[in-house]
Amino acid sequence: MSRTGSAPLDAVLTTLEERRPAYEERVARLVAIPSVSTDPAHAEDVRAAAETVAGWLREAGPLEVEILATEGHPAVLARWDGAPEGAPTVLVYGHMDVQPPDPLEAWTSPPFELTHRDGRWYGRGVSDDKASMTIPICVAEAFFAHGAPPVNLRFLFEAEEEVGSPNLPAVVRAHAERLACDVVLSADGGMWRADLPALTTRARGMTGLQLTVHGPTKDLHSGRNGGAVANPLHALAELVASLHDADGRVTVDGFYDGVEGPDAATQAALDALPFDEEAYRAGTGAPELHGEVGYGTLARLWDRPTLEVNGIGGGYQGPGSKTVLPSHGFAKITCRLVAGQEPSHVLAAIRTHLEDRVPAGVTIDVATERDGAIAYRIPDDHPVLTAAEAVLKEVFEQDPVRVGMGGSVPITAAFRETLGAETLFFSFSVADEDIHAPNEFYRPERFRAGLEAWARLWDRLARDAASTGAETRR
Amino acid sequence: MSRTGSAPLDAVLTTLEERRPAYEERVARLVAIPSVSTDPAHAEDVRAAAETVAGWLREAGPLEVEILATEGHPAVLARWDGAPEGAPTVLVYGHMDVQPPDPLEAWTSPPFELTHRDGRWYGRGVSDDKASMTIPICVAEAFFAHGAPPVNLRFLFEAEEEVGSPNLPAVVRAHAERLACDVVLSADGGMWRADLPALTTRARGMTGLQLTVHGPTKDLHSGRNGGAVANPLHALAELVASLHDADGRVTVDGFYDGVEGPDAATQAALDALPFDEEAYRAGTGAPELHGEVGYGTLARLWDRPTLEVNGIGGGYQGPGSKTVLPSHGFAKITCRLVAGQEPSHVLAAIRTHLEDRVPAGVTIDVATERDGAIAYRIPDDHPVLTAAEAVLKEVFEQDPVRVGMGGSVPITAAFRETLGAETLFFSFSVADEDIHAPNEFYRPERFRAGLEAWARLWDRLARDAASTGAETRR
Repeated sequence: MSRTGSAPLDAVLTTLEERRPAYEERVARLVAIPSVSTDPAHAEDVRAAAETVAGWLREAGPLEVEILATEGHPAVLARWDGAPEGAPTVLVYGHMDVQPPDPLEAWTSPPFELTHRDGRWYGRGVSDDKASMTIPICVAEAFFAHGAPPVNLRFLFEAEEEVGSPNLPAVVRAHAERLACDVVLSADGGMWRADLPALTTRARGMTGLQLTVHGPTKDLHSGRNGGAVANPLHALAELVASLHDADGRVTVDGFYDGVEGPDAATQAALDALPFDEEAYRAGTGAPELHGEVGYGTLARLWDRPTLEVNGIGGGYQGPGSKTVLPSHGFAKITCRLVAGQEPSHVLAAIRTHLEDRVPAGVTIDVATERDGAIAYRIPDDHPVLTAAEAVLKEVFEQDPVRVGMGGSVPITAAFRETLGAETLFFSFSVADEDIHAPNEFYRPERFRAGLEAWARLWDRLARDAASTGAETRR
Repeated sequence: MSRTGSAPLDAVLTTLEERRPAYEERVARLVAIPSVSTDPAHAEDVRAAAETVAGWLREAGPLEVEILATEGHPAVLARWDGAPEGAPTVLVYGHMDVQPPDPLEAWTSPPFELTHRDGRWYGRGVSDDKASMTIPICVAEAFFAHGAPPVNLRFLFEAEEEVGSPNLPAVVRAHAERLACDVVLSADGGMWRADLPALTTRARGMTGLQLTVHGPTKDLHSGRNGGAVANPLHALAELVASLHDADGRVTVDGFYDGVEGPDAATQAALDALPFDEEAYRAGTGAPELHGEVGYGTLARLWDRPTLEVNGIGGGYQGPGSKTVLPSHGFAKITCRLVAGQEPSHVLAAIRTHLEDRVPAGVTIDVATERDGAIAYRIPDDHPVLTAAEAVLKEVFEQDPVRVGMGGSVPITAAFRETLGAETLFFSFSVADEDIHAPNEFYRPERFRAGLEAWARLWDRLARDAASTGAETRR
């Protein structure tokens, strides 16, 4: 069924299977590079990850590969335009950076050493997003080994996803012509469950800030001064506690402006999904599930916004006790946003809420930690969804479902705005793989399935375009 | 004016002045030993401090000196009973341990290296309590150099004051007979101000606990799980915020049981004290003073109880952001208590308050961090107060005032209960010397004044007992 010039799919699939051990070795090499984008001390590691990925792209075939400097960490751009006339152009997106590994002591094996244990691969970033982003590079190489891929290719790998992709929108704008495509295939995103193929049709947006409460200019003795000087940790607790009510709703005036979801159709789809709440709870280890009153768990996770404190700190943190009245305390806050919410509006609303409630005896400082990202949803009737569903059914021999995602892939908005292209999340990570947490892992069988699925998807998109004249772009 | 066998005061004072450089060197040696009692890693350092102090006592004269093992850090006990018939017996108390030096980066010079700068001595523990506790050892040595001290001496130096003196009450009980005395002179306590001689007649008590809030068993991705799982940091903030009301009062039912202070006489004495509130505020660096409604600053500091969060923590603490929904958070809490409050009752009341308010979706754990200490007050008519006032007037050529202390000296209760002896705080540290904070310092001129004052006090107590038959004990 392959078209003129393109490699035959069967041969490509055979090659992917033969070369799989070498491709798995690439994942181990990439995990070994501690590309922690939030920590300036790891800037050289992030660059090393970009150079490694660029090297693989150059090995893959006659791609034009470039490492793009940004104001932050570099991105890798690659392109190839040799597909037959009329073939669609796909832009593959993924990210090379990872979250910090702390708390280090909670890891069973070293975070930056891919470790095979109990049929899993463990390592920081293996699931988010190093294994899944390596897959399409290998698939391109296998196609070139037998001729050429059936679709025109662009690859864009960034190294700032974990810090909110501050520079990627500018990169996309600056290289819009070279990145022009019919559809974006994101290797980032994560599949809902390990036992059920799924396509993620929406992701929450995000914004964040750091609240710092200042009291005395230095830590004071809590006996000598306690009672007469406001304790900034009390004020911090009061401010943080003021952000939610007893019903789990965010109390910030304006926070829910524009929020309507889930609509009736979405709610009906949520209700139709097989979902074992108790199994989900057990997986988190929380004593019970808890969230915004009036919504089910899946709606809370995918279609309702949140305001979460990711870290709080101040005063003495060590063993035992130290009787200080601390000079300051902080709370690191991020919000997950849904359709209708503007990140800047949400940030301004939180700032106003906090500034209106500064307790006596302290001052506060609200710092924006990252650029905001609006929520994303691919249109339900986009042809790439139909193609991907067919591919997942072939690979997993099971009908896939459509689901949401609580996390964020901020760059989707830039792809839509600048390139006019929608994004399909086509990741073979699974949502339970402890990403951003100790002992992050990946399922080796998903790496195999991913190689097959990406090859089949490119092939199907090309065939659909050729045989039906259907537009891959919508 | 010296009595038979005792050294002449003038000669002793001259010797103290001559040997002062050597005695100051002792302070530097003691500060160089990082005797951080709360941190098990410093156990050997704490022991080294005890051995150094015991060595000085052995050098001082024919004292019987012993290092006492306890279930925790050792204490040093010394005694000498050669004073003339009828001379009073004084027990000198001090402590050799120090608070942790963190945050280390806030120190201008190394915390465990006594540094002379701008007419001050800087170092962890120099003010609390290493310089002040070295003084009476040197004074004893100077008396022995000219004959003998005019009073019988007991020295008791502990190494667990900064962790609440958990083992000292048992030491006092076990050695009650050898420690029997007419009055305790505490080298710990700190003088109110540098420009006004003062005697501290009361100290607040203390108790403490650590609250831990548990949610999921591991850190979760705040996008993937946020909204459906309770965030323990929100619950922590809610619980901490619930401990005070907007008037700065502690809201824990039963917390104020038994609290009446300040009474009318005490309030009148507070009102008569020269106190520059704005200068005090400026010294703390707080934007404004703030505390329990209905009380002035000095009453809030000395005669009202407090509940303070000394440290709060949970989730991501590093630079940048990390989008976790943390598994747990903690708050380290201590309370300063006043007359009428029972530490165990206060702890139980806080525990009940917290357990009654556990937010949905989390569990809590309340751990008692240290034994409690009741507040202490020496009777206003105790003869040692009069003697000490006369001495301070001689040394500083200024009438001393009587004040309170916000901090705690837990062992005073044990001295009263077990030995039947009251405690005079006779420290030459000053309350503004950043104890328990970075850049702790001591005023060298106070070391000189302290040497003179301790010699004069022992001499006066002996003369009062001999000439008037007045009891030192009350």
